[in-house]
Amino acid sequence: MVVLVEPQLPENIGMVARAMLNCGLTRLRLVRPRELWPNDKAVAAASGADRVLDDARLYPSTAAAIADLEYVCATTARPRYMTKQVLTPRSAAMALRTREAGGVATGLLFGREASGLDNDDVALAQAVVTVPLNAGFSSLNLGMAVLLLGYEWFAAGAVAVAEAELVMPEPTKPATQAELQGFYDHLEGELDACGFLRNTDKRPSMVRNLRNLFGRAQLTQQEIRTLRGVVTCLVEARHAKR
Amino acid sequence: MVVLVEPQLPENIGMVARAMLNCGLTRLRLVRPRELWPNDKAVAAASGADRVLDDARLYPSTAAAIADLEYVCATTARPRYMTKQVLTPRSAAMALRTREAGGVATGLLFGREASGLDNDDVALAQAVVTVPLNAGFSSLNLGMAVLLLGYEWFAAGAVAVAEAELVMPEPTKPATQAELQGFYDHLEGELDACGFLRNTDKRPSMVRNLRNLFGRAQLTQQEIRTLRGVVTCLVEARHAKR
Repeated sequence: MVVLVEPQLPENIGMVARAMLNCGLTRLRLVRPRELWPNDKAVAAASGADRVLDDARLYPSTAAAIADLEYVCATTARPRYMTKQVLTPRSAAMALRTREAGGVATGLLFGREASGLDNDDVALAQAVVTVPLNAGFSSLNLGMAVLLLGYEWFAAGAVAVAEAELVMPEPTKPATQAELQGFYDHLEGELDACGFLRNTDKRPSMVRNLRNLFGRAQLTQQEIRTLRGVVTCLVEARHAKR
Repeated sequence: MVVLVEPQLPENIGMVARAMLNCGLTRLRLVRPRELWPNDKAVAAASGADRVLDDARLYPSTAAAIADLEYVCATTARPRYMTKQVLTPRSAAMALRTREAGGVATGLLFGREASGLDNDDVALAQAVVTVPLNAGFSSLNLGMAVLLLGYEWFAAGAVAVAEAELVMPEPTKPATQAELQGFYDHLEGELDACGFLRNTDKRPSMVRNLRNLFGRAQLTQQEIRTLRGVVTCLVEARHAKR
């Protein structure tokens, strides 16, 4: 799954569709494209990859666009100073392919042309992908970035997938991003209630850091239930005293 | 050296320049571009890679453009039925790099957008490069083709490992196992106190599962402090009610 967050130019969306189909990728999601959608300029730039554009789906937020995905990589050209695995396109392709072979729903996030992904979007992902190119001129055209990742994804598929990074015991399944979001809402609500997040200046970065560390752990559905139980237990003991 | 034979659209020449500079390639030669040269549309599409365009040189024929080169690869999407080595981009990059290291002047030939290189041009080259992508939709945008070859060329020259598993922002350091254990003791003590771990049969596996998920996240020292703050905050609110 390729997810474009707030793409600005329909021509670039078209070039992304063409690059995707070059690499055998067909499923595209768009978060708040700036221009009207569907768009003739995108069709012209797709040079025949119309089916990718026709099947593209629109979402109101990044969280909504990745809600059903279980492993998400965020692409970024600059360091984000988050404690998160940073992959080359080749390693990311292997990480995606091994998970896909195990039935895991995966996604690749790309930001807007001018500024890339927000830190809040990056924090939602399980890993970061950076293309190691000329550090003095590293800004890739959006379609080119998609092509590079797609090229490595295509190549990685030719390699026999013999290993999975995380072994999931049956019948445990990886948590979806929506389940992860549900846990974040729960935890942050309780941390607001107890005053942990009362510093409004620091709140955004504190929330991001918490999400980042839990997002990195690639939690299972069972672990999400456990963590919610942990939070509920600590809080209920408090309420019982009232 | 990148040689574009009869490029049709100045926008594509600009995108080629950008892709080249992304990959640290700066020397561009143009054989009979269809539109006026220099061209403002090319500059706009280059997104800052002006120096590549400024230094581009014009030639009246492919033969003239590659006259001083010693090893030339021709890119093509379709089989040419010539007895000639056919390389993947990765192999071509290695072939170019090893020759360059030996002082050999090398070049990469790209054809016009609509039809690629003439067989006559291909015949001038020492080897052919074909990008192994979706056979059902294999026509790459010109800039994208240059980027893929440039990406592999760049990677082939990278001596340093371009990837770190976890990027630690200064001055954050990874937590030691002792610090992790301190957090486990803290959390488990509070979960005993609030009754979450009261089932003595299940307690060992519940503790193991919690440690497993936090251990997997490769926490930093700062994150350990944050998590201990989270637990303390939830618990202190309870104690305050006593």
